[in-house]
Amino acid sequence: MSQATAIRLPSPEQGHTIPFFGILEKRQTKREISARTLSVEQLSNLLWAACGVNRKVGPFGTPGRTAASASNSQEIDVYVALPSGAYLYDALKNELLPIGKEDIRWQALTPRQHNVDAKAPVQLIYVADLHRLTHTQGFQEPGLHDTEVQKAYYYVDTGLIAGNVYLFAAAMDLAAWFHNCDKQALTKALKLRPEQRVLFAQSVGYPL
Amino acid sequence: MSQATAIRLPSPEQGHTIPFFGILEKRQTKREISARTLSVEQLSNLLWAACGVNRKVGPFGTPGRTAASASNSQEIDVYVALPSGAYLYDALKNELLPIGKEDIRWQALTPRQHNVDAKAPVQLIYVADLHRLTHTQGFQEPGLHDTEVQKAYYYVDTGLIAGNVYLFAAAMDLAAWFHNCDKQALTKALKLRPEQRVLFAQSVGYPL
Repeated sequence: MSQATAIRLPSPEQGHTIPFFGILEKRQTKREISARTLSVEQLSNLLWAACGVNRKVGPFGTPGRTAASASNSQEIDVYVALPSGAYLYDALKNELLPIGKEDIRWQALTPRQHNVDAKAPVQLIYVADLHRLTHTQGFQEPGLHDTEVQKAYYYVDTGLIAGNVYLFAAAMDLAAWFHNCDKQALTKALKLRPEQRVLFAQSVGYPL
Repeated sequence: MSQATAIRLPSPEQGHTIPFFGILEKRQTKREISARTLSVEQLSNLLWAACGVNRKVGPFGTPGRTAASASNSQEIDVYVALPSGAYLYDALKNELLPIGKEDIRWQALTPRQHNVDAKAPVQLIYVADLHRLTHTQGFQEPGLHDTEVQKAYYYVDTGLIAGNVYLFAAAMDLAAWFHNCDKQALTKALKLRPEQRVLFAQSVGYPL
């Protein structure tokens, strides 16, 4: 049997022939973020890009979202920390439901990260709701009830949303940074139920 | 203290004013995929969009990629199963390095999924390399050596790549489906080292 050989790929098309590639070219993590606030229109666009409803009927009859999720369980909630307080993004209603009036953006960073930048106007906080996995309206499979499989699903599903945020930021010349957060403080501040898990946070704003 | 109220978000801008939104509108999982093969140009574009090099110098001096990773460890390898065999995507060289000549696409599905569709011309197989987390060239942090933190990182980082693939498929009118796979069979077929972990796979091709 002859030796298998490498496939030399042609150069990927960049820029103008595939407009999406112009965004991918600009995709990067930017940790230095200005305190300048985003408008409510920008917030709406950011959250819709992240995991908004993009079709009324998606898999298994529930609305489809811009980011996929395991069995379309849509188990990741995006909480939003703004200077004016903390909110839960309700994608179906296109609303920010108020959780509290305190500015908890600093809790979306770990104590060690506070020297980097605690000024970003928007902190997206990714929270998994295990109940939505175990009681999915989507495809029932045994893995949804296995702790390790649940982890795999909710972390991947967080990445799918966070990736949209990175590309939205690249498209709109904004800055985004996905990072660890103070899980314990946020669990309390966001008044989470026992079946909810704070996972990560992502800073978004104008680049410094 | 007055009652906190919901922020009613304006309708997100769709379509023509933000070209990226036209892609997000089309983002969806499509499980029914034709056997029609993709050209090598399409493969190159697909893989570059997934996690190609988009700048020579990214965080911590290593090249930047279209998908973020924990401390820029770039710990996720994308293996590619084609009818002609299995390959490893080398993003730096823009090459597919041959692993074997067998068609192992069916192993990128679990036995239970074979009734859905085993004909997709491309199976991307996501594999974490733990060594790259523990020996990152990026930011050193204790979490990189903690098994649970490692999981969180490599699953999120897989989601960041898979999200790019979903959006590439939407942009190019292709179909994509992220799913479980036969980890044991693939570990053997891809000749993985002990520090590597098969995580998930993603079918890509033309919609049926």
